[in-house]
Amino acid sequence: MSQKVQIFDTTLRDGEQVPGCQLKTEEKVVIAKELEALGVDVIEAGFPISSPGDFLSVVEISKAVKHTTVCGLTRAKKDDIDVAAEALLHAKHGRIHTGIGSSDVHIKHKFKSTREQVLEQGVWAVTYAKQKNYEVEFYAEDAGRADLEFLARMIEAVIAAGADVVNIPDTTGYCLPHLYGKRIQYLFEHVSNIHKAVVSVHCHNDLGMATANTISGLINGARQAEVTVNGIGERAGNTSLEEVAMTLQTHKDLGLYTDIKSERIYDISQMVSEMMRMPVQPNKAIVGRNAFAHSSGIHQDGFLKHAENYEIINPADVGVPSSSIVLTARSGRAALKHRLELLGHKAEGQELNNLYEHFLLVADEKKMVDDNDLQALVASHLVLVK
Amino acid sequence: MSQKVQIFDTTLRDGEQVPGCQLKTEEKVVIAKELEALGVDVIEAGFPISSPGDFLSVVEISKAVKHTTVCGLTRAKKDDIDVAAEALLHAKHGRIHTGIGSSDVHIKHKFKSTREQVLEQGVWAVTYAKQKNYEVEFYAEDAGRADLEFLARMIEAVIAAGADVVNIPDTTGYCLPHLYGKRIQYLFEHVSNIHKAVVSVHCHNDLGMATANTISGLINGARQAEVTVNGIGERAGNTSLEEVAMTLQTHKDLGLYTDIKSERIYDISQMVSEMMRMPVQPNKAIVGRNAFAHSSGIHQDGFLKHAENYEIINPADVGVPSSSIVLTARSGRAALKHRLELLGHKAEGQELNNLYEHFLLVADEKKMVDDNDLQALVASHLVLVK
Repeated sequence: MSQKVQIFDTTLRDGEQVPGCQLKTEEKVVIAKELEALGVDVIEAGFPISSPGDFLSVVEISKAVKHTTVCGLTRAKKDDIDVAAEALLHAKHGRIHTGIGSSDVHIKHKFKSTREQVLEQGVWAVTYAKQKNYEVEFYAEDAGRADLEFLARMIEAVIAAGADVVNIPDTTGYCLPHLYGKRIQYLFEHVSNIHKAVVSVHCHNDLGMATANTISGLINGARQAEVTVNGIGERAGNTSLEEVAMTLQTHKDLGLYTDIKSERIYDISQMVSEMMRMPVQPNKAIVGRNAFAHSSGIHQDGFLKHAENYEIINPADVGVPSSSIVLTARSGRAALKHRLELLGHKAEGQELNNLYEHFLLVADEKKMVDDNDLQALVASHLVLVK
Repeated sequence: MSQKVQIFDTTLRDGEQVPGCQLKTEEKVVIAKELEALGVDVIEAGFPISSPGDFLSVVEISKAVKHTTVCGLTRAKKDDIDVAAEALLHAKHGRIHTGIGSSDVHIKHKFKSTREQVLEQGVWAVTYAKQKNYEVEFYAEDAGRADLEFLARMIEAVIAAGADVVNIPDTTGYCLPHLYGKRIQYLFEHVSNIHKAVVSVHCHNDLGMATANTISGLINGARQAEVTVNGIGERAGNTSLEEVAMTLQTHKDLGLYTDIKSERIYDISQMVSEMMRMPVQPNKAIVGRNAFAHSSGIHQDGFLKHAENYEIINPADVGVPSSSIVLTARSGRAALKHRLELLGHKAEGQELNNLYEHFLLVADEKKMVDDNDLQALVASHLVLVK
């Protein structure tokens, strides 16, 4: 029995708050509709009290999406919750995301408070938000560095106060996968009412661990993953939607699935990158320009014999038309022969050897050899075959 | 007792074979010297038989570096090993990296061979390479998908044949951290002579797991990590040098260290990115432009109170001069006040409130608010304070 993992997309909140990524309301609405078509379960649409533009975006996204839950962020403050509740009025399904710091470093240095006081404020915020008749998700900020016993007490208390979802964020991207997984496991073992809420994982990528931490949390019982398209977000970013979706799809043995229509991933990746002016590096997993490109001779030869030799995901499954082969000085005879055939030139034996030797000299000089170069190379050998 | 992890850098081999990343020999020598200054233990300098340019690069890098081991890649073939041995003649410490596929999919579809035959060829290659009087590292290609029992037999046999290092690559980036860790653990438990060799981990990032898999392998006993600067490499790339080095430095409790001089990380990241024309995305961990930028109001406020609230690595530790604060519509009063003070304007109380309200309108419109905008904003309020 495969179990569903809810995808909570925060591209328009945790992603959009990044330097240079700010969007106009109309742009956010376009992305929100694409996220709905992609199959996400929840769209975090903004932090309504933070600015008039953010408020308006939550209002307009609430009107625009048809069935996806729309979520607004708040601090554990009355004004924040009031404003978020107002912004969500038009949502078919609305969710208020409220919370407070849970680690001692946040409690002491950010809130200048005590464990008891923040716990009390968190419980108050959930109770107050519940009165607005929306779903309520509670975040225990910096849970990745919180005292586990205290964290468990806090989570138990906010679930008792009515939280529908409890978010255990690794706010600073500090955790390692096995340790983050153990935190989630600890909560399942020590919070008596844990099964009354959905446990959510929200990870940051400061050490490159966001996706692995998220999967580790899911393996240990969490059933909602908070992600962004292309992994954009504060500092080194959030967990990548595409990496989580494709990891669960590739590892069916985990017994978890999402409703993401994976063949739409590449298009929305491109759209978010362009609208936010946030380039995706060529070696970005799943959506980078090179993610399915094979360049070394050993790999090209193996790939041409049998794609599964070097490909664990079919590029068509994420909306990329086909794997690309780019010839370089590291390409072997098999790739050259294959490419020449596609261009209508059949070369074998000594002829292929001669062409290959010439090709290597060109490749050492030009670095990348495209079809035009190959045509010229073949022409210079006068080996054009019908 | 903290234990050392060797850093095997393959930026100039697995990284350089990427479409568009090809370098001239002179450029490779410049990077190799920087890698030596950074403190890597082994530089994989190329695949000598693959092209005349690659051969020359291994020769020149062997001459140029002072004490770092220089490594050349080969297949399990006589010609490959002969040519690599020749290319490494000038190396103070040379290493031949030879190997063959270990997964059934590679054995059947790439080598059209049998388990027994590839095992025999691997043992032969190690035996032959050992006669060249270099260190020998054996790679069991696609070990991440290999039958574990067969993989253990293969590793035992090549160590018996003299392999100094055994590399267990997750060639296709398929593994999850806990499963990859278990593979390494299995080898330690089932390969009787495993302690005669160093176990090496070489991971790819197709599912975004390369760093997590590498750390999982190290936790389970591996003592060499194969990495590239900026995580460049075939398809979605290899494990990032900077992520592995900083994870071990941040998590001292793992009891592992490297000789990487972390304060040189940012400079070499920039150099590799520029020379290879491979952009680093802003949200790349450790070396991205935004990796230490705080933009949301909640984060800026917390960060200004106490950097540790949101920062687990001091940017100076990786050579980034200082954390940057960029004002946007998500910035709060605390960040505006701080920024104004740096510009010589002190604002408080109602004055700050008025400025902040005006600031939000500007920020919603302009998206990013820089110091010039702030000067104009303050001037328009006629609140210039000496």
